Amino acid sequence: MTNVVQRTGIAACLLAALSTTQSAAQQDAIVHDGEFAFLRAQFGEQWDAQDVEIDARLAELREANGGKPPNFLYILIDDISFGQMGERKLNYVMGIETPNINDFASEGMSLMRMYTEPSCTPTRTAMLTGRHPIRAGVEEVKVALVGEGLPASEVTLPEILKQAGYNTSHVGKWHQGDIEEAYPHNQGFDWAAFPLHQQVQLSLMTREAMQANNMLGYHASGQNNALLLDERFKPYGLVTGVEAEAGGQAREVDMAAGEEWTQAKYEEMNERYQTQAIEQLERVAALDEPFFLQYWPLYPLNFVYPDQALSRNGGFHADKLQLLDGWIGEVLDALEKTGEADNTIVMIMADNGLMYHYEGTSGLNQLIYRGGKTQHLEGGVRTDAFIRWPGVIEADSAAGDIFHVSDIYTTMARIAGATDYIPRDRVIDGIDQTALLLEGEGNGRRDYVYVYEGPVLRSVVKQEFKMHLPAPGAPGAAAPTYNIYRDPRELHPLVGYSLWAGASFQDMIKRHQKMIAKYPNSEIGKDVPYGGIENLRPESEKARQVFMSWQE
Amino acid sequence: MTNVVQRTGIAACLLAALSTTQSAAQQDAIVHDGEFAFLRAQFGEQWDAQDVEIDARLAELREANGGKPPNFLYILIDDISFGQMGERKLNYVMGIETPNINDFASEGMSLMRMYTEPSCTPTRTAMLTGRHPIRAGVEEVKVALVGEGLPASEVTLPEILKQAGYNTSHVGKWHQGDIEEAYPHNQGFDWAAFPLHQQVQLSLMTREAMQANNMLGYHASGQNNALLLDERFKPYGLVTGVEAEAGGQAREVDMAAGEEWTQAKYEEMNERYQTQAIEQLERVAALDEPFFLQYWPLYPLNFVYPDQALSRNGGFHADKLQLLDGWIGEVLDALEKTGEADNTIVMIMADNGLMYHYEGTSGLNQLIYRGGKTQHLEGGVRTDAFIRWPGVIEADSAAGDIFHVSDIYTTMARIAGATDYIPRDRVIDGIDQTALLLEGEGNGRRDYVYVYEGPVLRSVVKQEFKMHLPAPGAPGAAAPTYNIYRDPRELHPLVGYSLWAGASFQDMIKRHQKMIAKYPNSEIGKDVPYGGIENLRPESEKARQVFMSWQE
Repeated sequence: MTNVVQRTGIAACLLAALSTTQSAAQQDAIVHDGEFAFLRAQFGEQWDAQDVEIDARLAELREANGGKPPNFLYILIDDISFGQMGERKLNYVMGIETPNINDFASEGMSLMRMYTEPSCTPTRTAMLTGRHPIRAGVEEVKVALVGEGLPASEVTLPEILKQAGYNTSHVGKWHQGDIEEAYPHNQGFDWAAFPLHQQVQLSLMTREAMQANNMLGYHASGQNNALLLDERFKPYGLVTGVEAEAGGQAREVDMAAGEEWTQAKYEEMNERYQTQAIEQLERVAALDEPFFLQYWPLYPLNFVYPDQALSRNGGFHADKLQLLDGWIGEVLDALEKTGEADNTIVMIMADNGLMYHYEGTSGLNQLIYRGGKTQHLEGGVRTDAFIRWPGVIEADSAAGDIFHVSDIYTTMARIAGATDYIPRDRVIDGIDQTALLLEGEGNGRRDYVYVYEGPVLRSVVKQEFKMHLPAPGAPGAAAPTYNIYRDPRELHPLVGYSLWAGASFQDMIKRHQKMIAKYPNSEIGKDVPYGGIENLRPESEKARQVFMSWQE
Repeated sequence: MTNVVQRTGIAACLLAALSTTQSAAQQDAIVHDGEFAFLRAQFGEQWDAQDVEIDARLAELREANGGKPPNFLYILIDDISFGQMGERKLNYVMGIETPNINDFASEGMSLMRMYTEPSCTPTRTAMLTGRHPIRAGVEEVKVALVGEGLPASEVTLPEILKQAGYNTSHVGKWHQGDIEEAYPHNQGFDWAAFPLHQQVQLSLMTREAMQANNMLGYHASGQNNALLLDERFKPYGLVTGVEAEAGGQAREVDMAAGEEWTQAKYEEMNERYQTQAIEQLERVAALDEPFFLQYWPLYPLNFVYPDQALSRNGGFHADKLQLLDGWIGEVLDALEKTGEADNTIVMIMADNGLMYHYEGTSGLNQLIYRGGKTQHLEGGVRTDAFIRWPGVIEADSAAGDIFHVSDIYTTMARIAGATDYIPRDRVIDGIDQTALLLEGEGNGRRDYVYVYEGPVLRSVVKQEFKMHLPAPGAPGAAAPTYNIYRDPRELHPLVGYSLWAGASFQDMIKRHQKMIAKYPNSEIGKDVPYGGIENLRPESEKARQVFMSWQE
């Protein structure tokens, strides 16, 4: 609640902004979406003045740290809805405990309106590229072989941080595609350990998940397969975990030719990534250069009950969330031991809402917002997010300002001194939110979010209002509009909102579409799957060949 | 999480409890429901041993306070669902701020599984009598004249506290009926200021509420009434606020004969009760004897927007909740100034879930649990509850143990040294939860709740499981059963729960029914309405006469 930017006199300010020549900050400016330009016309002068102070503060911090910008440790958790971690009261509702994340939340700022994309791939792409993923043709990357992924033409956060002198590494889930150009070590990371696919293969395509009644029909032992013709309909031979260095070949680890993937191997993989996250942290903290380390755990996704539940909840996701909380505590302890904690910005968040398909048994539930993974509803795109920078971001603070996952790109770049390396030839959706982090609630620079499901714009958020786009052909006036404060579950589309807000929302959509027309969306990367893997198993090679047999 | 009672060796303990003679604590014991006796058979010896220590601790505290037991300040808020107050994160979800209640929560224990009855009258009866209200024939007392109310035969908490030397007073909502025996000053309070009815009359039966589109069809100005015959169908002449001393006549205040009740008068009434709560607090804190003061505000119920909203939410209930938070801050400050804060147990809670009928516009919403006021769903009966006793109840602590609003009766009686005055000729549903307050989470003595809607048992809660009773005639095996941790909204009645838990739930219901057979429910109090009011307005007298014209 400190230093709220003065928001009166908007009309006067708007006129001034439009009538004067562009400020220095706007020359060579990042190309933002139309809505941001619209806000900038209203607030640009104030923001420019505030930015001068922020630059001075960042320079001061860097100087105090021997000229080095801060390190980043970015922990991204899978499929956890808003409120499911970091909050004691809601822990009680769910019968789980996340004391480490709760404590972490109290040490930094809680971003209370963090919007992600509604699913794993797009959220991760948005964070990595600072853009709505559809601008690069990225939707959800499917589970089996697809021959698609994050295109090389995207300029990722680790790529720009490397230009600013950072060491970059990645541990855990990746889910950006099965083609060589999409691999993390080809997208800006100096070192990476990651599975080529995601948890559907790793934690559902097992005998145990079938026996737990969660993965139905997949495992060959579940029926006699007497009339089976197409073997590939049930994906097989998928590459599991690989490790690689920048520009090098990836090497699959811990799988022998002909070996069957099992729940035990999935658990080992999770444990290995946890160990590697700490090993990498210790390694990069000892380097001369600043580091950017991201740890993207596979847990809490898991579909088999443990021998003994840790939590009172006991659900197969909820229980692993409690386990993961302990693991995150270990990572934070390890950071503390490196002596770099004070110079490290740590961010912990989730990538989207829960897998609501398993509600009732997974132990996770919609809790506050309706919907989950894959959906444009708040339950799909609102997640817990906490960010800590000791002595800089106010401890135990909170902000109700809107934040979008793509803002991480632009904000981390600013703090790292890497803004100049952000490309200027494309739309960058991410807003620089450094002012919010440093000056607190009320200093956010975004009051809107466009919410896509894959390639389709499904809703538009502005302030506390949210319009669901009407079905194709339906009149705009029929677009249901919600007040998210009064109706967080988006159940009461009162016409009292639609009738005044409809036109304003349509204007927002026009500003968005105009920028797409000017900077058209590009194509997802396409290639033969499984390139650049030096020890491809025969069954993976076979799977690839069968897959390629029907490609044009 | 301190001093969790050892729960192993249950079988051995059970045998011992059944085979030995009754302990001293069980002689002249309060008659509890069958389920508690069932638990007592499993844990009685441990509880008896713990009670010896607790008695010593209470005696010590009393001695340190000049021989006086602690005061009680009990604030009961209307129609607020779990999570809507006392919690920053959820404040952000709703766009409101409750900083005073949030701070208060951090100074004491948060009772995370407080169960109330599903509506105003029954919750208040349960707290006042320590019993499920249906045992005294009490359901929801209706808005208009009814000639019914809390019977004189009930032994209320203020009545037993008075026997232990307490001064007792009541300010605000009462809603226990419109007959003389039901008035607070005839039910144990030395002094009381209260409206005879509730907010439907006081905040909905106004011209302004009709114009705000919330109270439809009631106000005479809304149609020309040309063909009107029965004037009483639209209640009129209802008594508003009265004040009285124990045993005396009540006197209506601030209403002249023929005057129309308005939104402005409702606001004045709320402000008056706030002022009186503080005045009474200052008065009773200065007495030699300990005090029991209850303040039951009418806000947040209110159906007209203010000239300018206080909150970002702005909804007509939510906004008043934020206002009320400030008022509660004033009351707590006033308590601090009396010098009695350290010797005063303060409890703040809500009586039941939100009026979900106004969801979308009131600004309140179901938030976490499904349902609201009048419903047996968790959203109807789970509320925020915080209790503070400086230096005794651990600050910033929380308990996931089940607590029922009737437990307040038995627990406050114990702490006040008034247990002996609890009647032994009837079932007392309230459990003594002093151990939980003093020793912390895991020391609760209840793992069950029977949830009634009016006279009908609608669900049974045990541990994290909840069975909704099947419709009449449907087989018991069809009773939907939920896991409240995994499925707080009670949406997924998995047969995996029903099939093992059904029989255990049926046993619980039998134990409950057996006690009802042994101690049958009695009748609600009945009398001519509006007895004992010394300045009844002519329109009230007329309303009473018309009402009586069809009574047998």
